[in-house]
Amino acid sequence: MTIPYTFFPSTEEVVSDEPLVLRRVVRWGECDPAGIAYTPRFLDYVVSVHEAFISLMLGGPIHMLKDELSVDFPVRGVEIDFRSTLPLDTRFEMVVHVGEIRSRTFDIHINAYKVEAEGKRRGDLAFVARITPVTIDHESRAAVALPEKLKSRVEAYAAAHPHQQE
Amino acid sequence: MTIPYTFFPSTEEVVSDEPLVLRRVVRWGECDPAGIAYTPRFLDYVVSVHEAFISLMLGGPIHMLKDELSVDFPVRGVEIDFRSTLPLDTRFEMVVHVGEIRSRTFDIHINAYKVEAEGKRRGDLAFVARITPVTIDHESRAAVALPEKLKSRVEAYAAAHPHQQE
Amino acid sequence: MTIPYTFFPSTEEVVSDEPLVLRRVVRWGECDPAGIAYTPRFLDYVVSVHEAFISLMLGGPIHMLKDELSVDFPVRGVEIDFRSTLPLDTRFEMVVHVGEIRSRTFDIHINAYKVEAEGKRRGDLAFVARITPVTIDHESRAAVALPEKLKSRVEAYAAAHPHQQE
Amino acid sequence: MTIPYTFFPSTEEVVSDEPLVLRRVVRWGECDPAGIAYTPRFLDYVVSVHEAFISLMLGGPIHMLKDELSVDFPVRGVEIDFRSTLPLDTRFEMVVHVGEIRSRTFDIHINAYKVEAEGKRRGDLAFVARITPVTIDHESRAAVALPEKLKSRVEAYAAAHPHQQE
Repeated sequence: MTIPYTFFPSTEEVVSDEPLVLRRVVRWGECDPAGIAYTPRFLDYVVSVHEAFISLMLGGPIHMLKDELSVDFPVRGVEIDFRSTLPLDTRFEMVVHVGEIRSRTFDIHINAYKVEAEGKRRGDLAFVARITPVTIDHESRAAVALPEKLKSRVEAYAAAHPHQQE
Repeated sequence: MTIPYTFFPSTEEVVSDEPLVLRRVVRWGECDPAGIAYTPRFLDYVVSVHEAFISLMLGGPIHMLKDELSVDFPVRGVEIDFRSTLPLDTRFEMVVHVGEIRSRTFDIHINAYKVEAEGKRRGDLAFVARITPVTIDHESRAAVALPEKLKSRVEAYAAAHPHQQE
Repeated sequence: MTIPYTFFPSTEEVVSDEPLVLRRVVRWGECDPAGIAYTPRFLDYVVSVHEAFISLMLGGPIHMLKDELSVDFPVRGVEIDFRSTLPLDTRFEMVVHVGEIRSRTFDIHINAYKVEAEGKRRGDLAFVARITPVTIDHESRAAVALPEKLKSRVEAYAAAHPHQQE
Repeated sequence: MTIPYTFFPSTEEVVSDEPLVLRRVVRWGECDPAGIAYTPRFLDYVVSVHEAFISLMLGGPIHMLKDELSVDFPVRGVEIDFRSTLPLDTRFEMVVHVGEIRSRTFDIHINAYKVEAEGKRRGDLAFVARITPVTIDHESRAAVALPEKLKSRVEAYAAAHPHQQE
């Protein structure tokens, strides 16, 4: 059988890191009786991007590395605009950009596109989202400044991959 | 044993319909390794309010009655501001108001407060959310005007329970 | 409006403690594209019974009281037989019995019946399940004997409510 | 950056089809406050194997191909033995075998092992599971014989990859 295994594509995987792109396929268990991804599952998708993006910025798995830095990155706010439904078995890609960078928080922007067919990446826009983590101290749980090294990496990413509004 | 059963309070229940208030308790299975409700679960909470509010407006379970009207109410947009964490076993109440009412959509606003102790309802604000359903035709999936009777009920609810920004 | 609020019944609540009975309604978000409860959700239901039953035996919320006893009750094994599907909006009741009681583990048996109509409790059998917690020490994570007081309560429950095989 | 992207490994992917092996990583959102995969999530893992295995047998995505055959494969029974916990970020592999094949049902057996390190596949046994689909007619929902071609493929798989009890 050919590889990758087309009878059961990867549920969620990073397919690019410049910019960060996560590809997913809509599973049966994520769909509601209308046969499309159930509304709350979109926040599962978006929070997964949040984890992957901070992991990319830290250079490894977020939950291991945040402990080393004695910080955490809980979500302060999130916003999702639903543009088209995601039916069962649909493959889609979430392309990640950075918006405003503040002292303690920054905005992660996601444009999610359906994958129309192999080789042609951008299908219809499925949703647009913004998720805003805040940096807090691991012990006191108080908001603190973004670690300097992390802030530099986020700024470099933002410069290299300017955010395009959809 | 006394009733209600305090060893295992109701996971989610309507405790008022004027205005609509849903009370929940944060279950073990909704919490992440930090011991608090996992971020995406908040959209599960919010979408549950969406279902309950439209059910209240229609006078019965949404998924049965929307079929009779040949319409559906998918979510066009959602926004959540996280104000304080929801630790395991926390009880909280989501108070529901209506914001702007347009021809095909309207805004449902949720203020979620922790329940501090029996008899004293309003504890800390846990989160604030806005969820915006759009009315579509069941067959064509095109956006259509809110059914007149439903619109009147929503307007009456909005008049009786003015939205208070938190 | 009459109470309880029939437009949105309680998602999950204890309706009896002699024997323990949990009543649920199948939510839209628990259903798959076939319009019935998605298979893995049944284990969510069953684990919820596990939490409620141990809470009942301990006389309060499990996760608070297990810490006081310095033990934990992870699941060692589970078995579910699916007898009929659970369509959207179906109400069902999980009736809880105790099977074999061993030194460190015991079997919780669940018979789940659909609620046909108000006042007539037992509809079709939806599923039968067995879930087996093991007692472990909170620190060492090694299996230990069931705390004596808990074991007595479980034995008294088993004697009062003999398990009926379905 | 090297590929595959180690900062965020694939959530779930097929890594072999002879025999079928699914590799997963335990995500933050799958863990409970104990920092390990929440018990009901194991049935999500197992049902995912069920989908992947039938997809492999049919030669493509199950939900598309079952419709062409006018059959469905709901789960009649499931059993899981939990052997060791799955902490956050753990990678594990589910190795799939076939047990008894009957006229309308067959048993899928799963041995799940932790991935200790790159290149050394088999770590500790995490869990052992059995899941039993039944073949039903798409219209009548009555149990029917396994389609002949599917049965042959399942038998060939069983012969090529004999089940080893753990």
